[in-house]
Amino acid sequence: MVPAEEIFHRISRAQHMMVDIGIDGIIIIQRVDLYYFSGTAQKSLLYIPNEGRPTLFVRKYAPRAKEESSIEQIIEIGSVKEIPSLIMDTYQKMPGILGMELDVLPVNDFRFYEKLFDGVKCVDGSPIIHKARMTKSDWEISRLEATAELSFKTFQYMREVIEPGLTEMEFSGMFETFARRLGHGGQLRVRDYMTEGYPWHVLSGESGGMVGLLDAPASGAGTSPAFPCGAGSKKLVENEPIMIDFGAVLDGYHIDETRMFAIRTMPEKAHQASLAAIEIHNRILEKAKPGVTTDALYQFSLDLSKSLGYEESFLGPPEHKVTFVGHGIGLELVEPPIIAKNRGIPLEPGMVFALEPKMVFENKFSAGIESVFCVTETGARLISKVPVEIFTVNPR
Amino acid sequence: MVPAEEIFHRISRAQHMMVDIGIDGIIIIQRVDLYYFSGTAQKSLLYIPNEGRPTLFVRKYAPRAKEESSIEQIIEIGSVKEIPSLIMDTYQKMPGILGMELDVLPVNDFRFYEKLFDGVKCVDGSPIIHKARMTKSDWEISRLEATAELSFKTFQYMREVIEPGLTEMEFSGMFETFARRLGHGGQLRVRDYMTEGYPWHVLSGESGGMVGLLDAPASGAGTSPAFPCGAGSKKLVENEPIMIDFGAVLDGYHIDETRMFAIRTMPEKAHQASLAAIEIHNRILEKAKPGVTTDALYQFSLDLSKSLGYEESFLGPPEHKVTFVGHGIGLELVEPPIIAKNRGIPLEPGMVFALEPKMVFENKFSAGIESVFCVTETGARLISKVPVEIFTVNPR
Repeated sequence: MVPAEEIFHRISRAQHMMVDIGIDGIIIIQRVDLYYFSGTAQKSLLYIPNEGRPTLFVRKYAPRAKEESSIEQIIEIGSVKEIPSLIMDTYQKMPGILGMELDVLPVNDFRFYEKLFDGVKCVDGSPIIHKARMTKSDWEISRLEATAELSFKTFQYMREVIEPGLTEMEFSGMFETFARRLGHGGQLRVRDYMTEGYPWHVLSGESGGMVGLLDAPASGAGTSPAFPCGAGSKKLVENEPIMIDFGAVLDGYHIDETRMFAIRTMPEKAHQASLAAIEIHNRILEKAKPGVTTDALYQFSLDLSKSLGYEESFLGPPEHKVTFVGHGIGLELVEPPIIAKNRGIPLEPGMVFALEPKMVFENKFSAGIESVFCVTETGARLISKVPVEIFTVNPR
Repeated sequence: MVPAEEIFHRISRAQHMMVDIGIDGIIIIQRVDLYYFSGTAQKSLLYIPNEGRPTLFVRKYAPRAKEESSIEQIIEIGSVKEIPSLIMDTYQKMPGILGMELDVLPVNDFRFYEKLFDGVKCVDGSPIIHKARMTKSDWEISRLEATAELSFKTFQYMREVIEPGLTEMEFSGMFETFARRLGHGGQLRVRDYMTEGYPWHVLSGESGGMVGLLDAPASGAGTSPAFPCGAGSKKLVENEPIMIDFGAVLDGYHIDETRMFAIRTMPEKAHQASLAAIEIHNRILEKAKPGVTTDALYQFSLDLSKSLGYEESFLGPPEHKVTFVGHGIGLELVEPPIIAKNRGIPLEPGMVFALEPKMVFENKFSAGIESVFCVTETGARLISKVPVEIFTVNPR
């Protein structure tokens, strides 16, 4: 359950921003935004005027929405078409300018709403939502810590059960089953309709050297050309570098962590690259403080990789590099801000990032690490609990 | 690999439809549509003019796209912004009216493309795509049969390993791991941005009686208010009805099947309801023939459920019933046509449906069945291979 004061503060923050940019109200539809601002993910629309009480219009299923949400005004509706007149009845006026989630709302749906709110100017409200969600409260950070604990245990489990002969996909199924026993929700949420989130990014040996469609240093083989990323049917073998990038979700909050594994050992080149990635990771953490900008951190990681001799492989092979070294994380796997080229956003206390310096040696292997940290008044604090090291295990 | 003649026929069909409705070309962006029309899911845009050769513009990663796709004209691009001038160079003219996937394309993305294709009228091209995909070729049906074989083996496995004390989520992890070993891709694809596909719809005992946000007879408990559907943390026990609705995907093609399980036995009321669901399922299969309309099949299922004494629970409890008894299935879990109220589409050979008559006794349990069938010249043929029966197992 999301505490009532959390919901209250989130809505207040959004209302202040609405007033600042001259929006009269906002309609929230997308499931994650809805959960963030209301505490329920039941099929609903949330109307937040720029002042006063919000109203949750619930299509299905009102008893659960009422139990989960601290929104006081909840109205059960049979159809979305009832909403404009219900807004008029409740607030005695219609918003002149209405914000909607134009970053996710499909064109056909938007046209339906534009017609429904005839005479209302519908504008993009998503920047307000992203800005509200960009810094996390102490309560949210405690939720992320709970997910990190689940993920820590899952990485421990991986060390116990990894063995040669398992396929990448099969191994991912094993550790996900373990994680589900602890509450892992299975479905990673990604906002962009063209990005598919999944928790089985196991890239062993040459799989780690496969570039592909993902906006990630390496895509892996995947299970088929229809889904050409993540774990595939390759079997894990001894003495190869195995990159395991696991996305865990508990009560809606995501943690995204990567560790290098080796059964027995890994080639020296991969070992050295893994150590270099850990060094870059640790040096960025030292540098991440309020006021430092995201693009400065990104540039720092590039310079450091170069000085360590990994310019060519860092963040992908030449010609196919990604231009970020970290991303915000929370109720979605990828959230603003991004620690990227040309995106100079100053770090603020409460921001939470997945930091993922990785090297890709095309057609050979990947090496890297990923942890989640939050920005505090004095610097960066790891939320991740998984040891910052290479996991070498002996075959049983 | 999708055979070249498949791609050729798919594109021809779309081109005929474009000519019929007066569209000059279509741009395909969404991953599943792209895979359907090109054979690759690499990050690309496919331009199909209403006559002549299509062009695949690949952003990432061209070597894999070229290996996977039989499209002859493949151009590697650095940015989407290059596309209009490349179309002009290639075809010596711009389309006057351009179809786009307005059912999935977010407003902000659409506005970007509208600006990019300045002077071109951008209209909704998604009806063409849906219509092209609505009937499946023999090759596609053979792919669905391969997925059905995987699913059949997975249901056999469930019978072997189900036992009291496993949580719903844990049990789902176990059978998904088994399925992944056989090639199951893990990620179920659903077109609607508000619907989240997942393979762990295990609803045991009272979980089956929980109505929720899903457009399904029952939603289950889910893992938290953030994801309040599907399997949850409830443990399986003896002598309760357990509904397992498993979505499997192999090489991009989905199968969606449901069976009732019981460890030892289930209460007589649940047993009788399960048998009634099987009867409705079988009678609909007898009736499904080319020319019969989807709404007639739906109405037939309602009448039959009433005559069997299940009017109140059929397709959900009173006030919360869904208005469909089946849905198209293929590269996405849910595709047109839907076997639903007020959607009178005549069945045609090659159409493939998941048929799912289900009863929900609110706060008590669900009972039902689901199989996948295709329409042939003479009637309905089951693609599903799982026995049409209730699975009762003895605890070990």
